[in-house]
Amino acid sequence: MSFQNPVFIPGPTNIPEVLRKACDMPTIDHRSPLFGSILHPARAGVRQVLKSDAAEVYIFPSTGTGGWETAITNTLSPGDSVLVARNGMFSHRWIDMCQRHGLDVQIVEVPWGDGIPADRYGEILKADTGHKIKAVLATHNETATGVKSDISAIRRAMDTAKHPALLMVDGVSSIGSMDFRFDDWGVDVAVTGSQKGFMLPAGLAIVGFSQKAHAMTASAALPRTFFDIRDMDKGYANSAYPYTPAVGLMNGLKTACDMLLAEGLDSVFARHTRIAGGVRAAADAWGMPLCATSADVQSDTVSAIRTPEGFDATRIVTHAAERYGVAFGVGLGEVGGKVFRIGHLGSLTDVMMLSGLATAEMVMADLGLPVRLGSGVAAAQEFYRATPAQSQKDAA
Amino acid sequence: MSFQNPVFIPGPTNIPEVLRKACDMPTIDHRSPLFGSILHPARAGVRQVLKSDAAEVYIFPSTGTGGWETAITNTLSPGDSVLVARNGMFSHRWIDMCQRHGLDVQIVEVPWGDGIPADRYGEILKADTGHKIKAVLATHNETATGVKSDISAIRRAMDTAKHPALLMVDGVSSIGSMDFRFDDWGVDVAVTGSQKGFMLPAGLAIVGFSQKAHAMTASAALPRTFFDIRDMDKGYANSAYPYTPAVGLMNGLKTACDMLLAEGLDSVFARHTRIAGGVRAAADAWGMPLCATSADVQSDTVSAIRTPEGFDATRIVTHAAERYGVAFGVGLGEVGGKVFRIGHLGSLTDVMMLSGLATAEMVMADLGLPVRLGSGVAAAQEFYRATPAQSQKDAA
Amino acid sequence: MSFQNPVFIPGPTNIPEVLRKACDMPTIDHRSPLFGSILHPARAGVRQVLKSDAAEVYIFPSTGTGGWETAITNTLSPGDSVLVARNGMFSHRWIDMCQRHGLDVQIVEVPWGDGIPADRYGEILKADTGHKIKAVLATHNETATGVKSDISAIRRAMDTAKHPALLMVDGVSSIGSMDFRFDDWGVDVAVTGSQKGFMLPAGLAIVGFSQKAHAMTASAALPRTFFDIRDMDKGYANSAYPYTPAVGLMNGLKTACDMLLAEGLDSVFARHTRIAGGVRAAADAWGMPLCATSADVQSDTVSAIRTPEGFDATRIVTHAAERYGVAFGVGLGEVGGKVFRIGHLGSLTDVMMLSGLATAEMVMADLGLPVRLGSGVAAAQEFYRATPAQSQKDAA
Amino acid sequence: MSFQNPVFIPGPTNIPEVLRKACDMPTIDHRSPLFGSILHPARAGVRQVLKSDAAEVYIFPSTGTGGWETAITNTLSPGDSVLVARNGMFSHRWIDMCQRHGLDVQIVEVPWGDGIPADRYGEILKADTGHKIKAVLATHNETATGVKSDISAIRRAMDTAKHPALLMVDGVSSIGSMDFRFDDWGVDVAVTGSQKGFMLPAGLAIVGFSQKAHAMTASAALPRTFFDIRDMDKGYANSAYPYTPAVGLMNGLKTACDMLLAEGLDSVFARHTRIAGGVRAAADAWGMPLCATSADVQSDTVSAIRTPEGFDATRIVTHAAERYGVAFGVGLGEVGGKVFRIGHLGSLTDVMMLSGLATAEMVMADLGLPVRLGSGVAAAQEFYRATPAQSQKDAA
Repeated sequence: MSFQNPVFIPGPTNIPEVLRKACDMPTIDHRSPLFGSILHPARAGVRQVLKSDAAEVYIFPSTGTGGWETAITNTLSPGDSVLVARNGMFSHRWIDMCQRHGLDVQIVEVPWGDGIPADRYGEILKADTGHKIKAVLATHNETATGVKSDISAIRRAMDTAKHPALLMVDGVSSIGSMDFRFDDWGVDVAVTGSQKGFMLPAGLAIVGFSQKAHAMTASAALPRTFFDIRDMDKGYANSAYPYTPAVGLMNGLKTACDMLLAEGLDSVFARHTRIAGGVRAAADAWGMPLCATSADVQSDTVSAIRTPEGFDATRIVTHAAERYGVAFGVGLGEVGGKVFRIGHLGSLTDVMMLSGLATAEMVMADLGLPVRLGSGVAAAQEFYRATPAQSQKDAA
Repeated sequence: MSFQNPVFIPGPTNIPEVLRKACDMPTIDHRSPLFGSILHPARAGVRQVLKSDAAEVYIFPSTGTGGWETAITNTLSPGDSVLVARNGMFSHRWIDMCQRHGLDVQIVEVPWGDGIPADRYGEILKADTGHKIKAVLATHNETATGVKSDISAIRRAMDTAKHPALLMVDGVSSIGSMDFRFDDWGVDVAVTGSQKGFMLPAGLAIVGFSQKAHAMTASAALPRTFFDIRDMDKGYANSAYPYTPAVGLMNGLKTACDMLLAEGLDSVFARHTRIAGGVRAAADAWGMPLCATSADVQSDTVSAIRTPEGFDATRIVTHAAERYGVAFGVGLGEVGGKVFRIGHLGSLTDVMMLSGLATAEMVMADLGLPVRLGSGVAAAQEFYRATPAQSQKDAA
Repeated sequence: MSFQNPVFIPGPTNIPEVLRKACDMPTIDHRSPLFGSILHPARAGVRQVLKSDAAEVYIFPSTGTGGWETAITNTLSPGDSVLVARNGMFSHRWIDMCQRHGLDVQIVEVPWGDGIPADRYGEILKADTGHKIKAVLATHNETATGVKSDISAIRRAMDTAKHPALLMVDGVSSIGSMDFRFDDWGVDVAVTGSQKGFMLPAGLAIVGFSQKAHAMTASAALPRTFFDIRDMDKGYANSAYPYTPAVGLMNGLKTACDMLLAEGLDSVFARHTRIAGGVRAAADAWGMPLCATSADVQSDTVSAIRTPEGFDATRIVTHAAERYGVAFGVGLGEVGGKVFRIGHLGSLTDVMMLSGLATAEMVMADLGLPVRLGSGVAAAQEFYRATPAQSQKDAA
Repeated sequence: MSFQNPVFIPGPTNIPEVLRKACDMPTIDHRSPLFGSILHPARAGVRQVLKSDAAEVYIFPSTGTGGWETAITNTLSPGDSVLVARNGMFSHRWIDMCQRHGLDVQIVEVPWGDGIPADRYGEILKADTGHKIKAVLATHNETATGVKSDISAIRRAMDTAKHPALLMVDGVSSIGSMDFRFDDWGVDVAVTGSQKGFMLPAGLAIVGFSQKAHAMTASAALPRTFFDIRDMDKGYANSAYPYTPAVGLMNGLKTACDMLLAEGLDSVFARHTRIAGGVRAAADAWGMPLCATSADVQSDTVSAIRTPEGFDATRIVTHAAERYGVAFGVGLGEVGGKVFRIGHLGSLTDVMMLSGLATAEMVMADLGLPVRLGSGVAAAQEFYRATPAQSQKDAA
């Protein structure tokens, strides 16, 4: 295994040195007060990253998928209706999970590349005068298409319809990298994992519950034990845990929050926007459109780039790995073979990104695509030169 | 945080240097062939540690509790009957999980300190002529009481009763440390975690399924997604995973299996028996009985030691932590305040164990218990001197 | 290689987790300002540990032996006289170095086990009316015999004799663990390494120069380049170094100073006295005298324990390593085969020490020495129980 | 401190993950057989990397500068003559060291940018009929100018002159990265450090002695103790060391040799030639000449690039560090301000190198130099695409 080149997948991200060390911890007694000195700051840190004052934060040894399951099983009962849009592979998977758990899923089909249509949500909710819909699900950032959606617009649609459903948001590839406002947007359940904006290895599901969502756990009839937040509540009150916690990763999470908050969330988001800007400039120079169908839905954490008709985009990912030892993301589901993805979230610099773009150019040239060497790099260089990198300078 | 002294809790164990390093891994692309070079050897290694030829091994970013949930949700349906003994806190918790998932749980109450009564299981199974019982659950090693049970006897009881129920075994604190024979004992589902015999940080649920258990997943109606082995099956076939895997921990698991198998499983078990022998000799010298009510059920991975009537055993654990920086385990549930527990599994030497026993003596003397300083240590020293430590010598 | 048991050699010590991580650093540009942010605090920290206001501190990628060479080559010229006592292997080696460098060495032979006779130094210096002696050398703590000497007494003898010679002190196994007062004692050159009181891996020579010693570098005619402090002076002024520095170790040194100073030097010294007290109590219980011939010269960092006449003490060290995987120190030079040494400096707790004592007992019993199992452990337990471990408690 | 971007200084290099871990070792007893299991393979590995059958290899806790001192003090006596060319800062420093140690240094002044003139050496040696010259010194690769010299030609000149002087070679920035043939070239002393071709942190001087050079240590009268190979010889024979060794770094050296030899030395060299080729292609595209005055002296480990007359090249290094967090090397001595240096040795890929070149372009554009963005990157990309990277592929 060679670990020399950075990875450019949309998570797990490159891991900062300090987080590698925070996670790599000797065993402590998780029933001792030491554990509380990790648990409580980690929860408080996540709450701040969520921009929330009152969210209850839960941390499971799991992944974002486990976070989704936590969200639905702690609030819903078999047969409950949920409203959700399908505009990419990850929203598709959440839908699948809901169906497997016996929920009645009202799906809004959306072209892959578009954001979630808040107005369509609004119409459906308005029509649901009996309030059969118990939860509205939204994927903030579709990792499969590089598309962000406007969660505040969805909240407005819900409020306009005066609909009491919970708003559950998959923020797996946005939280900690892109602006996310749990309180302002009236989010009821937010789901993420450790391996994206928090720049840690995979292994933690991180979930925030509003007081309204939290209140539903008593009546929620979907069976659950591992993901039951009631056991977590009991444990947390005693600086404890219902089973053995993943202490090292939680210590990493605490440290990651410290890092993000010390840099300043807005600086973190601006940094992501800047790195993404270089990637978009490069794609433009290559003459290749993003999967995201308009500028306002372009993600700052991942870009899905459409390759010319008839070309199998997966070849780019395979060739980059085999010839240059560089990892990009393949297209998934409906856009499989049609896009390749460049992840640009978490621990990444303009300099690292340029090596990814330079690699993509070599790969595309090797495979016969009409890309001029250096063209995308030059566009990104121009972009990076023109935009200040304040926070990076501070960190150096 | 000071990490100087070893921990003597019954898991997570002290982590060997080589496993610390195996887990502390830079990010790789989990969708690349590299991941397969970790996944497949890890699964094959676990299979060997289980002493099985054909078990399907599943590895989740979770814990033993998640392993229990994997076991029941992939094989059972709401309303199914299961037979299970309660003889400690961990069997109690599995029972609780079954009840929360809507199973009909037939509980055999057993004094805490006793093993599972195979004959009682046999009678109940014989009486269940309609084969309403779909699964027999057994905790191989009750971590709360330091009691092991005879799984082969349970299998014999099932066979004698010609009962087709699945045999599900919680081997969380036995597998990798004490003899466990998946195939010989006809185990259908075995559950463990990363943080015990595998000497890793917590964060993985590890579950083995027999072909018979595996066949039930199609009809099992308990809802599941995160723990659904069908998604794992699909992924594994392509060296992939249904969500982001905990790659570093899995690399640690692969390395841990290599270590255990290189030492030889029987040597590993003998090593645990030897370390445990010193602890039992010390308890005997102190004049304190084990919670385990007979020699044949004494666990080789954890000893629960009964303190004199009227003394709150929890004070030992608190004082050891506060005054000497040493972690022991408290009593749980029915034996709360009546026992303290010394974990002696995983990465531990006779020399390390002696420091734990010496600490326990100081603590008990500090708290006014009638323990002569050096008495337990001397008994353990005598025991360790008299018994060869072959594998340790080899490892040095 | 097994790293489970602590080491009980008189350095290198067990390394604290935080220092392992401080040393394990990715490459930085040692010609960038980053390097200054390590270099200057490391030097300032060492100065404080030396209890000096004005000492110039030099840090070389080397060891204590290189520190000795730094001391003599930067201050002396061929043919210069130096006065030095030989009371153990390390003072012997420094003498040997002086002779190899063409110095005229006046040796005071002292029984191994005794401290340096300050009165004898005084007489010789008084007799040296022509001030032919340019430097007085003293080993503060003889690692070979576990004997400390009274440096302030030597300074008083020099002052009484009104002798202008430099006072050079080998503090390799004392600085950072035992009281050392550069300014108060009028030390001119103090020498140590990274692997003792600073608890780091070997690889740094650390040397303090008084202004008086520093002034002699211009005229000192012994050839030197690698160890020339004039090149260091030039470099330091620019946050630079005359060659490539060992950045990771220096970062470790900076962190180690932070740790020692945060704990408080007097607390650090009291901690060492306490750990040593337990070892001495154990030796006493075993009926074995220390090599140190009186209580006032007993070292707090290493104890050399005399075994019965006719017994080869080296067998203890060999057997402990082979049978129990524990490292003690052998006797060196004149006391070879007559003593074995227990190192008790740096990162060590009472709990860890007890495992070393318990091991020594098993080893001695195995080899037929008349030691009662548990006897030394009990004596040490009693000692540790009776003495508060304030700083340890704070660290926990 | 941010460690995200690779460094592009000519050593220390980026450190491979596996070497980070090999160096980061808990304390072992360096007087136990364990140490021999590190020492002997490390020495044998270095011997193979030197392409020698019989060289005695010495490893000191020091740096290349200490290696130079080892070379001269173990073979020469005050007043001895040595012949040496000055063609850069590092040859200059070795000359300075010889002078400080009282040697009679015959200097051949060479334009910085040229290699060592073997013919000029030959003439001087031929004229030295009295064999007053005891050693010929040669810097294989001048790190300051990016110039390699032909050591075999120097050996031929010595042989032609039938001159018995020792041939001492500074291979600090070549050994392990560029072809070096200790035996074939008749090298008598070869000097290097841990932080270049061996890809480790700084902290080891590594020196090879021919039997002829080794024989001179008995009569060499320059004073030495720390660097005395006679003490090393005595130690090595017993798997020991004359003082405390830097065990972790030596374990790293053992592992680094394993890595280099597993890849194959010729593959390692070819890999360096390839990476260097891209850098040279970029410099050419920028219209900037190398400091190396002809293609046959261009180094494969470092390129010194001349900036336009009147421009202070140091600004590039400063701006790259401050604005982009990237480290290049400044010009030293005679070429200070006239060149900036790109290190391309050790652990580096084409992909990483492209990020360095892209950064250099942004920096030069920022500073107003007439460099077209992407131009050098494109030239390097073309070069890398056209040349296979066999070994990299194998490593992946």
